Amino acid sequence: MSNNHISTLQEKKVDVYPSRIHSEPRILKRQDPVVHSEWNTSSPVTKEQSDFYEQHGYLFLEGFLNQEELKHYQKEARDLQVTARQSESNHIIREPEGSEVRSVFAIHETRPVFQKLSQDSKLLSIVEYLLASKTYIHQSRINYKPGFTGKEFYWHSDFETWHVEDGMPRMRALSCSIALEDNFHFNGPLMVVPGSHKEFVACVGKTPDNHFKDSLRKQEYGVPDHDNLTRMVKEGGIDTPVGKAGSIVIFDCNIMHGSNSNITPMPRSNIFMVYNSIENKLVQPYSGQQARPSYIANRET
Amino acid sequence: MSNNHISTLQEKKVDVYPSRIHSEPRILKRQDPVVHSEWNTSSPVTKEQSDFYEQHGYLFLEGFLNQEELKHYQKEARDLQVTARQSESNHIIREPEGSEVRSVFAIHETRPVFQKLSQDSKLLSIVEYLLASKTYIHQSRINYKPGFTGKEFYWHSDFETWHVEDGMPRMRALSCSIALEDNFHFNGPLMVVPGSHKEFVACVGKTPDNHFKDSLRKQEYGVPDHDNLTRMVKEGGIDTPVGKAGSIVIFDCNIMHGSNSNITPMPRSNIFMVYNSIENKLVQPYSGQQARPSYIANRET
Repeated sequence: MSNNHISTLQEKKVDVYPSRIHSEPRILKRQDPVVHSEWNTSSPVTKEQSDFYEQHGYLFLEGFLNQEELKHYQKEARDLQVTARQSESNHIIREPEGSEVRSVFAIHETRPVFQKLSQDSKLLSIVEYLLASKTYIHQSRINYKPGFTGKEFYWHSDFETWHVEDGMPRMRALSCSIALEDNFHFNGPLMVVPGSHKEFVACVGKTPDNHFKDSLRKQEYGVPDHDNLTRMVKEGGIDTPVGKAGSIVIFDCNIMHGSNSNITPMPRSNIFMVYNSIENKLVQPYSGQQARPSYIANRET
Repeated sequence: MSNNHISTLQEKKVDVYPSRIHSEPRILKRQDPVVHSEWNTSSPVTKEQSDFYEQHGYLFLEGFLNQEELKHYQKEARDLQVTARQSESNHIIREPEGSEVRSVFAIHETRPVFQKLSQDSKLLSIVEYLLASKTYIHQSRINYKPGFTGKEFYWHSDFETWHVEDGMPRMRALSCSIALEDNFHFNGPLMVVPGSHKEFVACVGKTPDNHFKDSLRKQEYGVPDHDNLTRMVKEGGIDTPVGKAGSIVIFDCNIMHGSNSNITPMPRSNIFMVYNSIENKLVQPYSGQQARPSYIANRET
């Protein structure tokens, strides 16, 4: 048995968040901090913001990008969309009904401008405070959620998928969603369930092999059950942090979130970047299955 | 040629709102008043409410039902839903994906309690003021829009359908939507485009025969085009009149409206009643096709 195999077994032994194993959903207590640093006066967020993130699992920062930055990213995103329409690349995910572009992945690798954005010092300082370490991009994408036909993203914990399908061991990652258009409560905005990040919903059902292409269009595995969703929403409510283009939502890897469809004429594009702690590097997927491709789950820290 | 046939031809000659005829969408000016009465101090709404309805095309009345009435209707609606799940009646429309009950039609005929509600004196006085005549129920239904899986209703003018498919000659009808649950901006509430009721979007494409069963699940004909929708929303914005259970939205037959999907655990049931003026009785459908059944479009005033 190779050293590599032994190490993999050891890593898998400490699966503290088993999911898609049992026939009934289970609730497990979170084993990891939400804010991994101790706040002090030189922290890049206020005490109130840090406490809000700890309790609610997200942080909304209006006007994070200035107008010049915003225009620049909007133009790049449009260019990328035009290119993506004509492309056969597997980085591109289309809407479940129809062929309009839903998401383009790995934008921090393929476009220098988004690579630069991912290293923005203001953003990084907050991310590194919350995760208390250096980080790397686990996943990046633009979601286009077009007007008229934008479909819903059903409720899910990102961590549940990243753990089971990508082998992310612990809850020491977060997502940043940067609005490229004004967000309204009626054009399918991000909905989060405050407080839901403090428990882990172990989902039901085994994952089929290579299902990830379908799951990025429409999620069918790693889906939380109705009873737990109902209870979580009763306890925490639903928040829809919406604001002008250039605002940013930072949210914990385990917060329950989703979005409704968008029949309005207003598209709801956003840049989506996931930061993972370099202390939390990926192991073999906990499902025991083949890992997803690197444009979905970067395996190099 | 029978007298009946001559009369039908004459009625059809004055089609002032032709739709689903041309290959390009057309905009026609509204030929009918919005508020058909002159306001005076004994009118059942304030001058401000009357003017708001005239300009915006809808009126939102919070707390229209008292708690006792509300509980009564909620219970009746739940009973009806349980019965409907087991029923094969064509009054029952199911969700486009799956078999959950989406709507039950003709509730004012099949359930005495809803018959009584449709004749509520406070409601009728407002309806008769706005339409300046006696009225009758053109259509009634409960929409269940279940939690987790409630699908969208795409943008449409009700009048466009009632004119083309049911033979409603003029814009002298309105809808009342009574909320049976608290409505939130995130559980797929009614969205209206204020001001859109003042123009008629003549839609593209001929209607297939007997398509109504599909259209009640998912609308594909009588659908306004993207360019006109975008312009209307730019001009009028989008309003989402939401409030507590027991609130009511009264809206003009020609206002552009729709709703997004509902992945939240909160269902969004509402009672929906359409009043038409007795001066505006149905003629043969302007499509020249067979009229829809009477549980969808009541042909007896």
